Amino acid sequence: MASNTASPDVALVQKDAHPFERAQLEGLMTKRFFYTQAFEIYGGVAGLYDYGPSGAALQANLINFWRTHFIIEEDMLELDTTIMTLSDVLKTSGHVEKFADYMVKDTKTGDIYRADHMIENVLEARLQGDKEARGKERGAAEPEVAPAAADKKSKKKAKSQAIKLDDAVVDEYTKTLAMLDDFSGAQLAELIQKHDLRAPATNNEVTKPVEFNLMFESSIGPTGQTKGFLRPETAQGHFVNFERLLDFNNGRVPFASAQIGKSFRNEISPRAGLLRVREFTMAEIEHFLDPEKKQHPRFKEVEHLTLPFLDKHVQMSGNTTIVKMTLGEAVRSGKVDNETLGYFLGRIYLFLEAIGIDLERLRFRQHMDNEMAHYASDCWDAEIHTSYGWIECVGSADRSAFDLTMHSKRTKHDLVVQEALKEPKVYQKYLATMNKKVLGPAFKKDAKGIEDAILALSQDQLKTLMHDLDAGSAHVELNGAKIPVNKEHVTVEYKTIKESVRTFVPNVIEPSFGIGRIFYALLEHAFWARAEDKDRGVLSLPPLVAPFKVLIVPISNNEQLSPLAKEVSHRLRKMGIASRIDDSSATIGRRYARNDELGTPFACTIDFATVAKGTITLRERDTTSQRIGKIDQIISVLKQICDGSLDWKGACQILPEYTGTQDVEDS
Amino acid sequence: MASNTASPDVALVQKDAHPFERAQLEGLMTKRFFYTQAFEIYGGVAGLYDYGPSGAALQANLINFWRTHFIIEEDMLELDTTIMTLSDVLKTSGHVEKFADYMVKDTKTGDIYRADHMIENVLEARLQGDKEARGKERGAAEPEVAPAAADKKSKKKAKSQAIKLDDAVVDEYTKTLAMLDDFSGAQLAELIQKHDLRAPATNNEVTKPVEFNLMFESSIGPTGQTKGFLRPETAQGHFVNFERLLDFNNGRVPFASAQIGKSFRNEISPRAGLLRVREFTMAEIEHFLDPEKKQHPRFKEVEHLTLPFLDKHVQMSGNTTIVKMTLGEAVRSGKVDNETLGYFLGRIYLFLEAIGIDLERLRFRQHMDNEMAHYASDCWDAEIHTSYGWIECVGSADRSAFDLTMHSKRTKHDLVVQEALKEPKVYQKYLATMNKKVLGPAFKKDAKGIEDAILALSQDQLKTLMHDLDAGSAHVELNGAKIPVNKEHVTVEYKTIKESVRTFVPNVIEPSFGIGRIFYALLEHAFWARAEDKDRGVLSLPPLVAPFKVLIVPISNNEQLSPLAKEVSHRLRKMGIASRIDDSSATIGRRYARNDELGTPFACTIDFATVAKGTITLRERDTTSQRIGKIDQIISVLKQICDGSLDWKGACQILPEYTGTQDVEDS
Repeated sequence: MASNTASPDVALVQKDAHPFERAQLEGLMTKRFFYTQAFEIYGGVAGLYDYGPSGAALQANLINFWRTHFIIEEDMLELDTTIMTLSDVLKTSGHVEKFADYMVKDTKTGDIYRADHMIENVLEARLQGDKEARGKERGAAEPEVAPAAADKKSKKKAKSQAIKLDDAVVDEYTKTLAMLDDFSGAQLAELIQKHDLRAPATNNEVTKPVEFNLMFESSIGPTGQTKGFLRPETAQGHFVNFERLLDFNNGRVPFASAQIGKSFRNEISPRAGLLRVREFTMAEIEHFLDPEKKQHPRFKEVEHLTLPFLDKHVQMSGNTTIVKMTLGEAVRSGKVDNETLGYFLGRIYLFLEAIGIDLERLRFRQHMDNEMAHYASDCWDAEIHTSYGWIECVGSADRSAFDLTMHSKRTKHDLVVQEALKEPKVYQKYLATMNKKVLGPAFKKDAKGIEDAILALSQDQLKTLMHDLDAGSAHVELNGAKIPVNKEHVTVEYKTIKESVRTFVPNVIEPSFGIGRIFYALLEHAFWARAEDKDRGVLSLPPLVAPFKVLIVPISNNEQLSPLAKEVSHRLRKMGIASRIDDSSATIGRRYARNDELGTPFACTIDFATVAKGTITLRERDTTSQRIGKIDQIISVLKQICDGSLDWKGACQILPEYTGTQDVEDS
Repeated sequence: MASNTASPDVALVQKDAHPFERAQLEGLMTKRFFYTQAFEIYGGVAGLYDYGPSGAALQANLINFWRTHFIIEEDMLELDTTIMTLSDVLKTSGHVEKFADYMVKDTKTGDIYRADHMIENVLEARLQGDKEARGKERGAAEPEVAPAAADKKSKKKAKSQAIKLDDAVVDEYTKTLAMLDDFSGAQLAELIQKHDLRAPATNNEVTKPVEFNLMFESSIGPTGQTKGFLRPETAQGHFVNFERLLDFNNGRVPFASAQIGKSFRNEISPRAGLLRVREFTMAEIEHFLDPEKKQHPRFKEVEHLTLPFLDKHVQMSGNTTIVKMTLGEAVRSGKVDNETLGYFLGRIYLFLEAIGIDLERLRFRQHMDNEMAHYASDCWDAEIHTSYGWIECVGSADRSAFDLTMHSKRTKHDLVVQEALKEPKVYQKYLATMNKKVLGPAFKKDAKGIEDAILALSQDQLKTLMHDLDAGSAHVELNGAKIPVNKEHVTVEYKTIKESVRTFVPNVIEPSFGIGRIFYALLEHAFWARAEDKDRGVLSLPPLVAPFKVLIVPISNNEQLSPLAKEVSHRLRKMGIASRIDDSSATIGRRYARNDELGTPFACTIDFATVAKGTITLRERDTTSQRIGKIDQIISVLKQICDGSLDWKGACQILPEYTGTQDVEDS
């Protein structure tokens, strides 16, 4: 707190004096109750976390800003659809069939592993053993090729033994690890058998991999006949409401719907803290657009932004080099497919910047073809670097027309847009007309089949049929048999068609935010320890998202100070600025330190000058610099800082430096 | 739109020209996509609803204001705990055993009824038939005695037949209906048999009532061994985190935690729209306090408020007369038990007033002893009157020390507060000390039982034991037998005890808000139809909660207007004011009407005067009055109205009346 106390220059603060230690951050998280394992007093449940006051406030601020930045600023249609989801909906979307991981069981203990994690774990241990045997220490490997692998480290980790492997085996293991995401159950089983892979904790054999669906299942109502799942994503709630959304938007695309809410994945063995959990908050946007018009009217507002890209071609060449270029260049060069996708990448970048993510630890990584979700045709992940490696925090997938098409087929509701054409489209076409009154009696039970067969004919086939009918030699194929038909049954004409409406299934671009992952990454980026004391942690959260904006500290428990502290607190709260009074008996230094750990950016100290002269001092968290002003002035500065119209540098120009530190600290 | 167009006086608007029709409101709700049945295109699922853009925005605004009014303004500790809840937690809380309703099945069709609903349904039909037979038409009965009954009307309603009943039977049925809430399964079964009650839809016999637990059950993880339920309330998430919350609050009570989130009840047969659903948003406060100190420092801020009370004594006398009195009087007279409970009732009242609830249709009803939840010792419901009758919207229960005590017992965690006493408490007490080294060998397997028996003795019994030990005639009762003991086994002393810490289990006062119910009641209160046209519905939602604050209407699709509309919209959105441009080809009157249905309080009309002179007109929804001003001025007025610092009357003093209505409407 010494030398830079009075400096307004935040850049002078030395934040990298101590290397990051995850355990220290995790300790702070529980001590200051950002989050903790759920049902802790009952022993806890893996993959379920409760957010305490500081975490819930931080999360609420993130969500609130998300709502302002995306929903209000972009005029999106917000939704709040149910978590409990009818199983039929998730059958249509493919989740009942495909949203599964493979698991294996230790044949003796019954311990369950996610199959790919176990394989990865064992192969990595063998490779590690090989390196040791060859005398090369394997570094604290940051996964370069398979970025998602970072959060898959098992607690039940296989121990490496220094055994040298053949060069060919090393090569095979390495290649296998890179492709593991794409393996089927049969392939995983084959790997396990081929390499004699065993349960890491016990070295027992494991069972064959079996699929485990990752959705929580339940039953709706008392009959047990209506099956439901907890949604694995909020997206389906948008799609099933597409007709009403389109109507709300006067029948026109593009428009975007947005939803913030909980989703669930019944992970086989969750780990990596908040990064792989069973219940999590998502914020999802479904931007519906004309597949032929992927321009965006506001793209020019973001095209100048320089983003760090890692495209699929670079990755496929075995490389992870980030290429920085402007969004304008990226779209023009085709790296990013279209303006709308590019616009969202830009908006995501601005969102992450505003909440305090270190932009040097951010990249936009394109999915390789073998890792795409079953519904996606292209996907760019905003990945944030943490002590677990690069973490997918926002996925921007092009779901094309997949979901709307599937729901249309299943429900017979046309989930389409009808666009009035400015100039009608005129063209010619062969058209068949059935004469059902004759067709039915003539062919009885085959009539429907014949009708369907005719309707399925191509234009060329219809042309042939027309000529054959004229020639009296027409027939239709039904189940391999050739059935003769004549002009009594069906006629074919070459007609002029005039279309004044274009009907299409919109495409969907889906930016999907994992709020918990962003939350955790932000905390890692915000965390540092004071140069002079490794144990004095600080969370440099921007005022926009900090759980509490202002700490109010009466310098002592003198009775004159308490009403003033309450008054300041009350006035701040009335303006919606979250403040906390700390009137505990701890020293003022301790109280400051406690709030540095909470990420509280400012502290107002109430002392006897407040009583005598109506002044309070204002301390800034990162610099620990203190300024002084009248109560009204301080409150006005805080309001401006919290609404973003002033920064600390600006505040320092308004408020003079406080020079009576010793008085304050000693009393 | 004619006579009062220019009047700034909202009170002049005639809102009661047409009687309220629920079907009209419900039509508006789907047409303007406030909400709709979930999975509508799949046929829908009862009790599950999706909120569309207008509903989700209204709900988000309600929640946002709730957070400001309660959490920030009251400095509460916000939580976000998991929905998926370990079954053990809900066993402890009593939900696994007691959170159930009885159901019966139609023995032939298999249709399921909630048992009490079916009984009520049939008895009411018989009473109705009796009235008809006696020639008295029963009115459109508003349930006066059993307020909660209003939302229990079944769709499968029993038809009444005009059959006269004995006076004694009428009396018995009436009494039964009043007590139905309190009946056990056996009593319900007896009623069904005694009165030969049958399935209303078919007149078939029904099965015996069986219990159906109202929690959705699922399984956590792949083993199937960890059972979970979707939480039926958010409260348990607060209680299991009590230790961390207390620590966060420096070990002191009182403090309040708060949580906003989804909860679930697997209703047997949900109905009454949003009022009885399977998934709903709650906002719950758990205020932890010293049972001996139930005063509240801010009570004086609300004691002047006059609230409408309906206490349990009035109800037990068969009456529903509301008594209005100030909170100060209510607490002093003991009607409301204590200041803290009173303070919350006052804050709830202010919350409901601010969001636009008609205070003439609000009452605070005390639970009668027979309707209290299993954990509650007192409860006051804020009930709002709707077309379904009086609806419980906010419950304020005194859960006493029930939950913390139960969780303490189950987990062996002491969920208590330790208060340092200013003056140590000094007193004398008999204290027994076991000599385990002798006790064990002497009594073998009975040693533990003897020890427990001694520890369970009262002070008087210990005094006797002390004397008996001195006399050599002491014994301890174990399983009915008298076991002799002596001073080798145990000694008793009369000791002076000095306690400097007081340990207690805090009590909990729980205001619990059903956001969906408040949402629906608010919509009913806000809805009316223009005097001149029954089909022109208006939602008079206050700007604080209205889904969209400002409609921007370019008067035509002239190219000069569009950029101006976008500019106004952009500037409003930048300030966080949700606005929508309606540039559809509908007439301006239609566009206004559409937004009256959305509850949009203001409309900015962009016309050629905007291009030429930079003026826009501002239309107020309720009065349809229009004012005019420069763009900056209009935006400034809107900002002030939306942040609550100005009302429409004030706005009318700033902005002159717009006199060119005809120009606007005709263009």
